[in-house]
Amino acid sequence: MAAPPAAFAATAATVREEVAVRVAALKSRYADNVCGGTPGLAVVIVGERKDSQTYVRSKRAACEAAGIASFGYELPADSSQESLIDLIRTLNDRTDVHGILVQLPLPAGMNDEVVLDAIALDKDVDGFHALNFGRLAMAGRSPPRAVPCTPKGVIELLDRYGVDPAGKRAVILGRSNIVGLPVALLLMHRNATVTVCHSKTVNVGDLVREADIVVSAVGRPGYVKAEWLKPGVVVVDVGINAVDDATKKRGYRLVGDVEWEGALSVASAITPVPGGVGPMTIAMLLVNTVDAAERSFQHQ
Amino acid sequence: MAAPPAAFAATAATVREEVAVRVAALKSRYADNVCGGTPGLAVVIVGERKDSQTYVRSKRAACEAAGIASFGYELPADSSQESLIDLIRTLNDRTDVHGILVQLPLPAGMNDEVVLDAIALDKDVDGFHALNFGRLAMAGRSPPRAVPCTPKGVIELLDRYGVDPAGKRAVILGRSNIVGLPVALLLMHRNATVTVCHSKTVNVGDLVREADIVVSAVGRPGYVKAEWLKPGVVVVDVGINAVDDATKKRGYRLVGDVEWEGALSVASAITPVPGGVGPMTIAMLLVNTVDAAERSFQHQ
Repeated sequence: MAAPPAAFAATAATVREEVAVRVAALKSRYADNVCGGTPGLAVVIVGERKDSQTYVRSKRAACEAAGIASFGYELPADSSQESLIDLIRTLNDRTDVHGILVQLPLPAGMNDEVVLDAIALDKDVDGFHALNFGRLAMAGRSPPRAVPCTPKGVIELLDRYGVDPAGKRAVILGRSNIVGLPVALLLMHRNATVTVCHSKTVNVGDLVREADIVVSAVGRPGYVKAEWLKPGVVVVDVGINAVDDATKKRGYRLVGDVEWEGALSVASAITPVPGGVGPMTIAMLLVNTVDAAERSFQHQ
Repeated sequence: MAAPPAAFAATAATVREEVAVRVAALKSRYADNVCGGTPGLAVVIVGERKDSQTYVRSKRAACEAAGIASFGYELPADSSQESLIDLIRTLNDRTDVHGILVQLPLPAGMNDEVVLDAIALDKDVDGFHALNFGRLAMAGRSPPRAVPCTPKGVIELLDRYGVDPAGKRAVILGRSNIVGLPVALLLMHRNATVTVCHSKTVNVGDLVREADIVVSAVGRPGYVKAEWLKPGVVVVDVGINAVDDATKKRGYRLVGDVEWEGALSVASAITPVPGGVGPMTIAMLLVNTVDAAERSFQHQ
């Protein structure tokens, strides 16, 4: 993973090409299906957050490029939770929709859990349904229908760059349900010895110094000091932070959680921001959607 | 927790008394209910493992002592999985059964997951249903209907002895779905910085040396060396191992994972085996059963 940023973008592009090949195969094999073998992803956004709109646009464009049909739904910020759940139920019943993504965060007043648990288990391409998460957590049980996209992208990057976590010390910074916790569980299943740090952890730097693999999902620029890193460490930077930058037309630039320049000279591998985990997250959404479509076609 | 073994037995006894008080209140409040307000636990055992029979006897005796009705079912080892699931479905429908416990391990050839997921979510007093486990894993979501008994007992012991895990380093030895993993998750939710060690971990001793709290669920006598322990550490020993002992009538005695004599002089607190976590596990089963009964009565 000591590759330059362009190589990481290429990795996500490779995954997207693999998805496109699978989509083409489905369209050929299931041409007589009601939707012509075309995987379909419904993307629902509530409200007008600029960053959410950008994410949703990227996701839909990636779908189209891979041959996946994307169905967009934009609900006003003052929509009722009931109307959102009604929409989800309609999408649950549609045979041309194989995955349903509700872009988070939802407006204040809506209950994420109630909304996400309304998504049919088979269409939960984000993997946040409690039953899917339980299966992700437990080893030796049935695998979840889908693994959340960002954690799955982190593991996929390690795999594709030949980093085997087995027997390694992995330190995860952040314990969110969306990134830190599932990454920790997946690395534990891959036989890493995992430590999860968070806001109440004392002496984070001392823990990071022992790590062979560091995954940071804190959301604070420069949080991970270069001096904390053990020579040869593999660093996966999940943070995406906007910092002021007058030299940029839009007045800011995106950086990760890690002191990039300093880390570059110490780490054996480090993912860039932007261009590292972000594109893999979108690529994994496509993978989860095609997985769901394949399951659906096989059972029809 | 520097208490002598007898004190730990007293703690479990205290919990059982608290349960008995709650049971009496239910019987008084819901006397007109179809089962007279009596919580009921069905205990199912398949096959004739001596240790399983002992556990089941202890669990049923503890129920009776607390005023909980216990219904025992013994299926022969060569029973079909279908007949076991049929029994579970019958128990799911019974209004006088509020909790269903299927004693593990099941005979070879049966699929634990399929069997356990057949238990109605509301009656899953062991907390091993994937949906319950997903809720246990994720912070900020609805709590699970039940937390698995042994991990719950570990946390309850820490609570009752005033050990606050927040900001402490906790090292968990073992990553099983039954003990190690859920203990790790619960301690993380209590703001400990948690490291999970397992068979692929290198230099376990070095990690244990950094720990303020050690929970061992490995199942190997003497696995945790006294020299690994930091002075003042809190040790929770979940291991229950039979070692040969000619001085005992039955030819063996039970010990934990930890070098007991050596650990006693280093740790600020340590749970004994037998008499530490084991009785708390049974006490938590009673708590989970009464919780389930209360929910049931409130919804009738």
